[in-house]
Amino acid sequence: MNIRHLVESQQFTVPLLMELFERTRAMEKIVARGGTRDYERSIMGTLFYRPSTRTRFSFESAMHRLGGRVLSTEHANEFSSEIEGEKLEDTIRIIGHYCDVIVLRHHEDGGARRAAAVSSVPVINAGDGTGGQHPTQALLDLYTIYRECRTLDGLSVALIGALDQGRTARSLAYLLGKFDRTKLYFIAPEEMQIKPDILDYLDKHGVSYECSATAGDILSHADVVYQTRIDRARLQKSDIDLTPYNIDGAVLSRMKDDAIIMHPLPRSVEIDHAVDDDPRAAYFRQTQNGLYVRMALLTMLLESE
Amino acid sequence: MNIRHLVESQQFTVPLLMELFERTRAMEKIVARGGTRDYERSIMGTLFYRPSTRTRFSFESAMHRLGGRVLSTEHANEFSSEIEGEKLEDTIRIIGHYCDVIVLRHHEDGGARRAAAVSSVPVINAGDGTGGQHPTQALLDLYTIYRECRTLDGLSVALIGALDQGRTARSLAYLLGKFDRTKLYFIAPEEMQIKPDILDYLDKHGVSYECSATAGDILSHADVVYQTRIDRARLQKSDIDLTPYNIDGAVLSRMKDDAIIMHPLPRSVEIDHAVDDDPRAAYFRQTQNGLYVRMALLTMLLESE
Amino acid sequence: MNIRHLVESQQFTVPLLMELFERTRAMEKIVARGGTRDYERSIMGTLFYRPSTRTRFSFESAMHRLGGRVLSTEHANEFSSEIEGEKLEDTIRIIGHYCDVIVLRHHEDGGARRAAAVSSVPVINAGDGTGGQHPTQALLDLYTIYRECRTLDGLSVALIGALDQGRTARSLAYLLGKFDRTKLYFIAPEEMQIKPDILDYLDKHGVSYECSATAGDILSHADVVYQTRIDRARLQKSDIDLTPYNIDGAVLSRMKDDAIIMHPLPRSVEIDHAVDDDPRAAYFRQTQNGLYVRMALLTMLLESE
Repeated sequence: MNIRHLVESQQFTVPLLMELFERTRAMEKIVARGGTRDYERSIMGTLFYRPSTRTRFSFESAMHRLGGRVLSTEHANEFSSEIEGEKLEDTIRIIGHYCDVIVLRHHEDGGARRAAAVSSVPVINAGDGTGGQHPTQALLDLYTIYRECRTLDGLSVALIGALDQGRTARSLAYLLGKFDRTKLYFIAPEEMQIKPDILDYLDKHGVSYECSATAGDILSHADVVYQTRIDRARLQKSDIDLTPYNIDGAVLSRMKDDAIIMHPLPRSVEIDHAVDDDPRAAYFRQTQNGLYVRMALLTMLLESE
Repeated sequence: MNIRHLVESQQFTVPLLMELFERTRAMEKIVARGGTRDYERSIMGTLFYRPSTRTRFSFESAMHRLGGRVLSTEHANEFSSEIEGEKLEDTIRIIGHYCDVIVLRHHEDGGARRAAAVSSVPVINAGDGTGGQHPTQALLDLYTIYRECRTLDGLSVALIGALDQGRTARSLAYLLGKFDRTKLYFIAPEEMQIKPDILDYLDKHGVSYECSATAGDILSHADVVYQTRIDRARLQKSDIDLTPYNIDGAVLSRMKDDAIIMHPLPRSVEIDHAVDDDPRAAYFRQTQNGLYVRMALLTMLLESE
Repeated sequence: MNIRHLVESQQFTVPLLMELFERTRAMEKIVARGGTRDYERSIMGTLFYRPSTRTRFSFESAMHRLGGRVLSTEHANEFSSEIEGEKLEDTIRIIGHYCDVIVLRHHEDGGARRAAAVSSVPVINAGDGTGGQHPTQALLDLYTIYRECRTLDGLSVALIGALDQGRTARSLAYLLGKFDRTKLYFIAPEEMQIKPDILDYLDKHGVSYECSATAGDILSHADVVYQTRIDRARLQKSDIDLTPYNIDGAVLSRMKDDAIIMHPLPRSVEIDHAVDDDPRAAYFRQTQNGLYVRMALLTMLLESE
């Protein structure tokens, strides 16, 4: 099984996901042993048009743990002092001479697809546009559920927050829809509820779901609570009470003993720091899984060369 | 033969150019084999006072393919949070303790020469000032002609664009003047024609040339067409028609079958994207050659230690 | 002897200083031999919330000479494009998954202590706040005196400049106070004289010192002259003559033959460039020692893992 570029999470079939996750599990062991030098002749270029230190560090650490090397910029728009901007396609063609894989964060929706279309080396989408894709986040989210719950079948997953714009929640809903007996709960203020395109997709694939403005009893039987941030400035009624969408000790006490709490981070007030020490708080393990998933992905793409 | 620092392209005699190009050819083969680890104990510092991601990546990729390591900054003016600017000479003395070769892009003409004068390690000028030098660009341009045309003698080379300010065109004219039976054509709007200092140099060395405001029949018998960008904002008459200075399919159809089109990139409208797929379009191969030339140069300077 | 994090220079006892300096001496020899690869599986993350190219390069070069790898940012405040700032504690918890040691420059006093409190990997304070600590600078200063004077006992050390705010001068005074028969001279405009907390500390430990507005005869019998910058803008009387606080050829001629002049750099006018070539000018050797001290420190912290 083979992919050349990673543009969007939709590229992943269930068998390809399982292959990726098997590799990811192997990467955990490799890191525990101190990494490998198998890729010491490979160069990864991280070409970020918008800074995102966490995502960049995660990819770069992954490449270093594989033994590889890194070219890095967080200000790819300063590509040249001579001309204001150059076509992304030209940039990709040139950078492809300097490295063996390109990790691209672009500010325009579809930027990664345009890059992949002309690139001589594999391109990994590390987030494009605001309504665009961030597929490695979706993959590490799914892997975290798989790793923590030991299965992806028959799970009840509650997604909470600004679900209309949250590309992580959207992508996760999409990927979970591929597995048997998934039950999804979308919990959000009405104006931020998940968009119809996702619901249409779930309907078509016979996935069970509920939309709700309040968590009610849902969190007490969910296997996974996936929390995202609500940007208060986006709310029309500024006096709306957002605390029902937050997770604190009281919410925690109602959750199942083997449930997990996830968050793509960075967080604001929506998860109380008192929750951090509970073993069900999986969000820091989630970021760590990002390292392993990205290592696994890099090996898949570099082998496809 | 030996150089300690690379400050300007004038340092290169024909025998030194040939030595560099022989090394460059060897580097192509080394990269095809996956690079070397011969320089794994060497550190290159890229000290850029102005960002230029492409040039920086080219140098850093070169160092990585040699097995070496890289310290990197694109904002060397933020050298310290405590004092506004420090003398370049002090900075170079200090950075020389941290690396084995310094790649410097400085915003002042003559910055590289000042750095070389005090540096304890080799300094490579990666562009200084606006009217200054960018010698590795000149060397990769010349190497590209040598590689594509298999000779540097007896070539007809047309240089098109804003030749008065274009340091790449100026440097290339200078270097080509060292070879036998070169014929140069300078094609530019009158106010942007190549400056007399270059013409004086060519006269002194008996190099044949023509200056012209229009390409006319020149492009149909040129071996090399070196295209540069014209900044419309610099033109006094804003209604001047610049299309005669562009290259498109029609121009291409008049060119010789074994001619090549070069451009230092980034480009704007002056080369139509329809030209990219023609085998005579050499500008992406040209940037790739930058990698090999910089590898070769790094080995020359690190050996001179 | 063991330290887990380096937060402040006060962590160092005399025996720990001596262990560090012994390691530092060994690092000088390792660098002379071209470095080591002992730490080739280790990753250092340099997390700078304020740019400081010199300090960053010094740490990164240290890690490279040890064979290790580096993740780097000078703009850690651009940690995410999605949320304005995230709690430092969350950032540290996440970055700890991606590297084996974190070098932190933070803009708030106490930032390093907060980071160390939650970090799963060693944290090195590379400067926090303005009134905060910069312990590796203090250590390299002390090592330079030890290396140049071959002892730390019985030295007469003159500290000149804006001593009230100068964290380097303050830390050095603190560390020198640990050694036998130290004599300190604080030379500064009255309004910039060293603060009472340091003098209290020296009194308590029976360290001999003098405060003075002028150098007078002090420099002629000092073993070490530690010069720092005076920011003229901070002076209430803008017509005050600062030249008595500068070092030039005349001052040099009065100094002992085996005395040394130090400066944390960058300098402004306070040390004349004519002094640079005198063997007593130790400030460039001082920055070089920063490399060796940081290598030694990294090995101590990585071994404590």
